[in-house]
Amino acid sequence: MNEFERADDLQIGGLSIWQDTREFCFGVDAVLLSSFAEVRKGDRVLDLCTGNGIVPILLHAKTEASCIYGIEINPVQVALAKRSVYDNKLTSVSILEGNIKDAVALTEGKRFDHVTCNPPYIKEGGLQNPSYGKAIARHEILCTLSDVVQIAARVLQYGGRFSMVHRPDRLTDILSVMRQYRIEPRRLRMVHPRENAAATLVLIDGTLGGGTFLRVMPPLVLYQQDGTYTKEALKCYGRDEK
Amino acid sequence: MNEFERADDLQIGGLSIWQDTREFCFGVDAVLLSSFAEVRKGDRVLDLCTGNGIVPILLHAKTEASCIYGIEINPVQVALAKRSVYDNKLTSVSILEGNIKDAVALTEGKRFDHVTCNPPYIKEGGLQNPSYGKAIARHEILCTLSDVVQIAARVLQYGGRFSMVHRPDRLTDILSVMRQYRIEPRRLRMVHPRENAAATLVLIDGTLGGGTFLRVMPPLVLYQQDGTYTKEALKCYGRDEK
Repeated sequence: MNEFERADDLQIGGLSIWQDTREFCFGVDAVLLSSFAEVRKGDRVLDLCTGNGIVPILLHAKTEASCIYGIEINPVQVALAKRSVYDNKLTSVSILEGNIKDAVALTEGKRFDHVTCNPPYIKEGGLQNPSYGKAIARHEILCTLSDVVQIAARVLQYGGRFSMVHRPDRLTDILSVMRQYRIEPRRLRMVHPRENAAATLVLIDGTLGGGTFLRVMPPLVLYQQDGTYTKEALKCYGRDEK
Repeated sequence: MNEFERADDLQIGGLSIWQDTREFCFGVDAVLLSSFAEVRKGDRVLDLCTGNGIVPILLHAKTEASCIYGIEINPVQVALAKRSVYDNKLTSVSILEGNIKDAVALTEGKRFDHVTCNPPYIKEGGLQNPSYGKAIARHEILCTLSDVVQIAARVLQYGGRFSMVHRPDRLTDILSVMRQYRIEPRRLRMVHPRENAAATLVLIDGTLGGGTFLRVMPPLVLYQQDGTYTKEALKCYGRDEK
């Protein structure tokens, strides 16, 4: 442990997570994704671009998945994720180090019921974070939206589900690419900081080989006018029963 | 005039519209589209699938377009639209009878700054209205989403805008087809009957040859919990100053 590392309380299931402030730390995106993904009892789940493992850890707390794998390319994040898995005694969660493009080999050819991903949002080019770890988590340097969707389609069972959080400004790319790889978009939820603000995130899922009917869910508004979290946002943080 | 015809007060600019209850009568969709479309001063506008002319008439009231054309294939609706234009003395509005696929010939090769459309929403097949007029207004019998977008791209100036209202379940089709014909989606607004209900309509615009950045606007919620219109919905009906 060094001065940049800390264990944050996730305030759900008694879980905590190791983070390193020099690396990409999780945000509301990962929390919302773990609530949005309709992971069913017994599902085998794979999280692409898992970072410090936040999505697998939250999915462990929120769902009844039988096993959850996470793939991450950054060895610093992999070490943190593995430490969190070990400390929290999450025997059903496995963190794999490697490139998501090698997902089939890394997972030994397993097929998954559900693939989740909180990918880098920003197209390559333009201003990037001087920290390489942060840059590859935010920008499409090592993997693009198209890579993520293509890989999800490869490792999913037919009829399996793909859930992702992304930026609304990329929505045309997202829906087009999902359809291109036969993951037909099925549910979409826009996330707005306030009810009268433009969307800042989009939650989307699709089914490999699914029919063409997209359900646009009610908007998810994060903050009330007084600046406190809405009931819905609190529910995503697992604090609805307090 | 017959027992099925009536002139409805549009409650804006002293305008009224002729409708025939045996034909497709306008709904909230057309009203929302006319408010959503960013028609600028001096714009030449073309409305495809104009029906009884509701969109051109509302655009006349709400914008400073220099001229507004509407194309409609159903002669009964064309006659109603022309009568409304005449009765309201809308000298800048022209209703053209014909197939939108002949838009270039019908408009004598004019280029437009803005194209609007409230097209048939439903894919062909399945249960249709026994009234042929209502069926062709609701189902993709005579024209598809792809036709509409392709025609818009053909008659727009480079940099011109296309605005449409449609169903959210078709969003993947909509965004894919717009990009296919180089009308890049730029603004999107989901319409929800209530804040906690799924979206029932989507408002979308795009620019011919535009850059790839989509802005997802705040959700447009139509009704408050007590069943009365929201302020935003009233604004679309032009009643915000009452």
